[in-house]
Amino acid sequence: MQFFEGSEKKIEVVLQPGQPSLRQLEQPFWHQIVAKANATILSSVHNEHCDAYLLSESSLFVWDDRFLMLTCGTTTLVDAVVSFLDRFPKQQLAMLSYQRKNEYQSHLQKSSFEQDLQALNQHLDGCCYQLGYLDGHHNYVYHLDRPFEPPQDDATVELLMYHINGDAAAYLRSNNQSLEGIRQRLNWSQLLPAFDVDDFLFEPFGYSMNAINGDRYATMHITPQENSSYVSFETNLPQQEAQQVLGHLLGTLQPDSYDLISFNQEQFLDHQPGVVCIDQAQQDLSCGYRMRFQHFVKPASACRSATRL
Amino acid sequence: MQFFEGSEKKIEVVLQPGQPSLRQLEQPFWHQIVAKANATILSSVHNEHCDAYLLSESSLFVWDDRFLMLTCGTTTLVDAVVSFLDRFPKQQLAMLSYQRKNEYQSHLQKSSFEQDLQALNQHLDGCCYQLGYLDGHHNYVYHLDRPFEPPQDDATVELLMYHINGDAAAYLRSNNQSLEGIRQRLNWSQLLPAFDVDDFLFEPFGYSMNAINGDRYATMHITPQENSSYVSFETNLPQQEAQQVLGHLLGTLQPDSYDLISFNQEQFLDHQPGVVCIDQAQQDLSCGYRMRFQHFVKPASACRSATRL
Repeated sequence: MQFFEGSEKKIEVVLQPGQPSLRQLEQPFWHQIVAKANATILSSVHNEHCDAYLLSESSLFVWDDRFLMLTCGTTTLVDAVVSFLDRFPKQQLAMLSYQRKNEYQSHLQKSSFEQDLQALNQHLDGCCYQLGYLDGHHNYVYHLDRPFEPPQDDATVELLMYHINGDAAAYLRSNNQSLEGIRQRLNWSQLLPAFDVDDFLFEPFGYSMNAINGDRYATMHITPQENSSYVSFETNLPQQEAQQVLGHLLGTLQPDSYDLISFNQEQFLDHQPGVVCIDQAQQDLSCGYRMRFQHFVKPASACRSATRL
Repeated sequence: MQFFEGSEKKIEVVLQPGQPSLRQLEQPFWHQIVAKANATILSSVHNEHCDAYLLSESSLFVWDDRFLMLTCGTTTLVDAVVSFLDRFPKQQLAMLSYQRKNEYQSHLQKSSFEQDLQALNQHLDGCCYQLGYLDGHHNYVYHLDRPFEPPQDDATVELLMYHINGDAAAYLRSNNQSLEGIRQRLNWSQLLPAFDVDDFLFEPFGYSMNAINGDRYATMHITPQENSSYVSFETNLPQQEAQQVLGHLLGTLQPDSYDLISFNQEQFLDHQPGVVCIDQAQQDLSCGYRMRFQHFVKPASACRSATRL
């Protein structure tokens, strides 16, 4: 069975004022950080605010005073974080949050979330929450326990889609797909106008995309494999623009199940008829963000046959 | 955080005709089998058909020509199966099935289902299925790939309940519970009349029950811990009698989420208003059973707060 763990781990760090720019560090710095996670840099786009790197497993965005890194598969993101903290110890940080999503096959991961916590707690004073039931979709977040006031426009949303269906899903699993064909179906030119888009098609399939426009970003990662398909989209676009993209993605990819996670942004999705929210949790984090989690599912429309292993 | 993995692994074996009775084996045999799984025998009840053992982690039922063993926690049931096969190799078996439910924390298990398969495939020729989505509740089944005709009354149902609520759930988590109080709430005297009941209350909480009547059995295991509560009930009662018990349990324990799994028995549950089936799968197994799987959930009624870890 062809399996790839699409679910990401995510780190976001904001430096205290007065630190050197994260974009001006010596050339090998980010390559080493990425290597610590067991990933490599495939390509990049740059503008006056941000360097956006597409990774062999997901993405890295670097601004002058902050960075965001997502990695999937069996990467070891926590090792990259610890390596970053060796150079920028906790007193230089204004905010740090480390997130981990439920995995399809958590026993194949190189570390558990509990082990990640132990590693982080040797460098930081943090708190940790689980949003969502342990036997369903859930999201872990660990953050530096230090007051932080995010700027007004620092609001992000993540849409995590499971078991995609329909024409676009079939296309993403087909042998004759192309970057151009995927871009058209996802409609980046209309939904992310004025963005610099950097995307990559993996063999035999799988798609990654980074897009930046000023200090706005969007990133998407598609693992289309039947029975374990997973698509993540994340952006810091303003609420209404983000809502448009999310609506288009839901309609195009028709997931059976999806999570909506947001930080300082409330989102209302345009659900298909019958979709129900089966779990929701909300938490005000001491690092200045209100984190929201919702898990939506389509009721089963038919009896499926079993998967032969 | 107090955590105990309630989800069970399960083995069921039927011998070919002409084998010695499994109830007449030398005394240490079943003790050794149970020890291989890292469990111990707590108590037992017996009738003319069956020996029912309550284990430190779940249950063992032995009939003359078959046995059924369930173990939870981090037990190593597959080791017990391999040990059984050393004494009763495959040519002496009419049927074998090995099931494993999704765990709350699969990374804490001593083996993955894939590793269990490797161990079983060294002794058996089997096939293997997954019923249910990998990122939701699901059930793995491995069985001997050999035609078998189960007797008409060999039909079982399992009800696996997650996140129990209400008065009974609060009682099961309380300090002042007693065996008598639990029996009353579960109403065994009415629902399982004429059954010999053997039950056990664990410290600080947790309840296990075996019941037998002729060649009928019922078994229940309760892990009431908040945030990871799990209750399993399984029986080979006829359809209508089973339905009565399942209905009472659903009403009393009010789970947010539950799985109904059955073999050669179709069950219709009396769901609370609003409950939806979010996944269902069915498979005809070459060992003579039609296996059905359904996952039901209550829509989220309120936004929960996060769990602080």
